[in-house]
Amino acid sequence: MNAAEIVKGVFSADARAIARAISKVENAEAESSEIMRAVFERSGNAMVIGITGSPGAGKSSLVDKLAMLYKEKGEKIGIIAVDPSSPFSGGAILGDRIRMSALGTDKNIFIRSMATRGNLGGLARATVDAVNILDAAGFQKVIVETVGVGQDEVEIVKAADVVVVVLVPGMGDDVQAIKAGIMEIGDLFVINKADRDGVLKTERELKMLLELTSRQDGWNPPIIKTIAVESKGIDELAEAISKYYEFQKKNENLQRRSAVAKWRLLELLREKLLQELLNKNGAKEKLDQLALEVAQKRIDPYSAVEKILR
Amino acid sequence: MNAAEIVKGVFSADARAIARAISKVENAEAESSEIMRAVFERSGNAMVIGITGSPGAGKSSLVDKLAMLYKEKGEKIGIIAVDPSSPFSGGAILGDRIRMSALGTDKNIFIRSMATRGNLGGLARATVDAVNILDAAGFQKVIVETVGVGQDEVEIVKAADVVVVVLVPGMGDDVQAIKAGIMEIGDLFVINKADRDGVLKTERELKMLLELTSRQDGWNPPIIKTIAVESKGIDELAEAISKYYEFQKKNENLQRRSAVAKWRLLELLREKLLQELLNKNGAKEKLDQLALEVAQKRIDPYSAVEKILR
Repeated sequence: MNAAEIVKGVFSADARAIARAISKVENAEAESSEIMRAVFERSGNAMVIGITGSPGAGKSSLVDKLAMLYKEKGEKIGIIAVDPSSPFSGGAILGDRIRMSALGTDKNIFIRSMATRGNLGGLARATVDAVNILDAAGFQKVIVETVGVGQDEVEIVKAADVVVVVLVPGMGDDVQAIKAGIMEIGDLFVINKADRDGVLKTERELKMLLELTSRQDGWNPPIIKTIAVESKGIDELAEAISKYYEFQKKNENLQRRSAVAKWRLLELLREKLLQELLNKNGAKEKLDQLALEVAQKRIDPYSAVEKILR
Repeated sequence: MNAAEIVKGVFSADARAIARAISKVENAEAESSEIMRAVFERSGNAMVIGITGSPGAGKSSLVDKLAMLYKEKGEKIGIIAVDPSSPFSGGAILGDRIRMSALGTDKNIFIRSMATRGNLGGLARATVDAVNILDAAGFQKVIVETVGVGQDEVEIVKAADVVVVVLVPGMGDDVQAIKAGIMEIGDLFVINKADRDGVLKTERELKMLLELTSRQDGWNPPIIKTIAVESKGIDELAEAISKYYEFQKKNENLQRRSAVAKWRLLELLREKLLQELLNKNGAKEKLDQLALEVAQKRIDPYSAVEKILR
């Protein structure tokens, strides 16, 4: 499939073409610019839901149940699971298959894991591109699930229309661990595994923290209690999501969208600049050679970088 | 203080100079190259311990107790807490003060939080630079604690001599959430809060996962159970750390150190290239203008980036 064929396939929601398009942007292949240019025009219709929280918070179950609910309403759902800790997508792909079979392999749900590309970076950029691809393919909901709460992941979920932060009780004494940065990005909060001890304590602490964080847009993030594995609280979650979605649409904020666009441009720039440099004759060999010299302490990293740049 | 004065201060372990040096590299100021060049030569003596795990795993308590133990042995300890989710260091600095007063404000413990610099990136690079600074200042132990398990954080802890992954029971049913990537980087594993239900289950699952992951160097990562807030298991942890440290020194691996150096060079390159581009006349304004156009869907991000680069 060439770029034009991939784009055509994406627009007709062909799963193979979508997967191909995502692989192209994930690997930053030459065709990705052409694909993304075409895709961008058609995107902007999906509701993009970002779901984040610690490992073990039960995000996957929550996402799966939410996807089932949307599917039952006749919608098409794209799920992108970002796993930056996984250096290869092998494990992730196995996970996809397991989830696929649980969710049913019909055409209405598309699941894709995105793993790190190693030293080359670009995971965040590729994830946002993948969201645009699913959006352009006509999926009404795109759910981006991030494992981990690193810098990239925060940026990824910030690019969503609705940001859901998932907590679990029993980490109650460490709600502080969910630092200001995470508190600020949550449009709604879920306490999952709400049949566990310590739910009230976690809720109380979360409320206190939320009172300390005032939002410029005047929205008060609700707290929803769920038991995802028993499908409890999923309706309430979906309702809260659509409520906030309506709210933010009415208060549409060009400044916020500009900030997301700027982040995206910077990510892309960083990647392109490095790519251009490394594509130069002998640059990769020089980098390897200098890395070896740094490891042997024969040169410091700052001087080494000067050598590569000059 | 100019760069030479800062370097002199660092070499005589002056806390103010160290803090200044770290701020310079954190903000990628002009003097940082000069400082890091001088620092690099003197570094390489400290034992660098990377500690990672989910929020709520009790990493801070564990780090504090470990630092106390080293301090009682007459050593100097540097602690760097990386919090990529925090957009400003305000909260982090408050946290530092609380920890400082708990650990005692003597000269033998230096604590510093590193927060994200926003869109500009460079947190991982700045953290590794800060480790070198503390190393050059003569701290015998430098502990790097990362909140979150994102891509950057994995790279940061991989740059350490000894990597400790902290888990808690009760996330037992989700040990799988600690994916292959994290399992591979752990030289030892801690199950903290080991007085909680589910310790045995977590331990069993962890052992199973470890059996599936075979290491090239033949090391079998031990599992240590701790209750950090009660100072239980800290001796055992310190012993396991020093055991692995000796092991890896004997099996010193130039390939591994080259890989870390290469990652560090790439981080630095990415940052410098972007900086150079944005320092060009009018580049920042052009970026803001194009970000606005992307937000308004008047141009796609890929075409916008082409415009900035040409």
